[in-house]
Amino acid sequence: MSEFVYKTIGIIRSPFKKPEGMPIQPSGANAVVGSVEIHPEYKDGLKDLDGFSHIILIYHFHESKGFSLQTIPFLDDKARGLFATRAPRRPNPIGISVVRLKKITDNVLEIENVDILDRTPLLDIKPFVPDFDVYENVKTGWLAKASKKVRQKKSDERFMTET
Amino acid sequence: MSEFVYKTIGIIRSPFKKPEGMPIQPSGANAVVGSVEIHPEYKDGLKDLDGFSHIILIYHFHESKGFSLQTIPFLDDKARGLFATRAPRRPNPIGISVVRLKKITDNVLEIENVDILDRTPLLDIKPFVPDFDVYENVKTGWLAKASKKVRQKKSDERFMTET
Repeated sequence: MSEFVYKTIGIIRSPFKKPEGMPIQPSGANAVVGSVEIHPEYKDGLKDLDGFSHIILIYHFHESKGFSLQTIPFLDDKARGLFATRAPRRPNPIGISVVRLKKITDNVLEIENVDILDRTPLLDIKPFVPDFDVYENVKTGWLAKASKKVRQKKSDERFMTET
Repeated sequence: MSEFVYKTIGIIRSPFKKPEGMPIQPSGANAVVGSVEIHPEYKDGLKDLDGFSHIILIYHFHESKGFSLQTIPFLDDKARGLFATRAPRRPNPIGISVVRLKKITDNVLEIENVDILDRTPLLDIKPFVPDFDVYENVKTGWLAKASKKVRQKKSDERFMTET
């Protein structure tokens, strides 16, 4: 078993129709509103989710093409190992974002802090649980200085090309 | 585009040969040591990762069979909407765990706090960056009381069956 086929379970809607100018992380997308439209056959799986203020969206970077094992990330000017970055061009172009969940109406989730391209295919939703997902005393390597810049830095076209 | 094919980029090794008795989250797996063997062709993507103390592993729940949209999770005795749980039986059986990175030697990562079954296929590695991934003032719904129990609670066989 070395290949897996995953299906879209919904579509993420956002104000970002193209990558240029997009926030590069949810923390750079403060108050940006979007939505998730879950395909109706999965709607019953949303029960109890409205008690959570934050959710983890797992999605497919549908505009990302190819990958390089070393890449110059948005927050730096040096090539870094791909797995030490959050760049979208990856062997498996899977994205994760923790977003704020505002409201669920039927099969539609209203979300906030959206750093995701419009019409991105959704693969999974999980509740964000600090007891599971958060550590203290964390070292963040090359991102230690750069990660604060995420609030200002915007995306560009670099991850749409094959080079 | 509604289906995506992902490839294994490595294998996660852990002391857990079967689901029964396994920790159900990294926070219940304190000091459990494991490793990640990255396939050699992806090794160059590991550059710079050794500066990070914690990494996000994205993997395929290879022992999980089928799914139900409502499920009784390990931490409760009531059926909950699947997307409000971290149960492994999901439409797309994708797992995520934040683990501690101890050391990288060649293409092998030594990791700690491993709540993952031995021989789990790895799909992606991302650096864990609190500025990107952590929120304060989080509400955790039905898990608010239960999530503390994660340190004691162990897995069983329930997610291996098709029912």
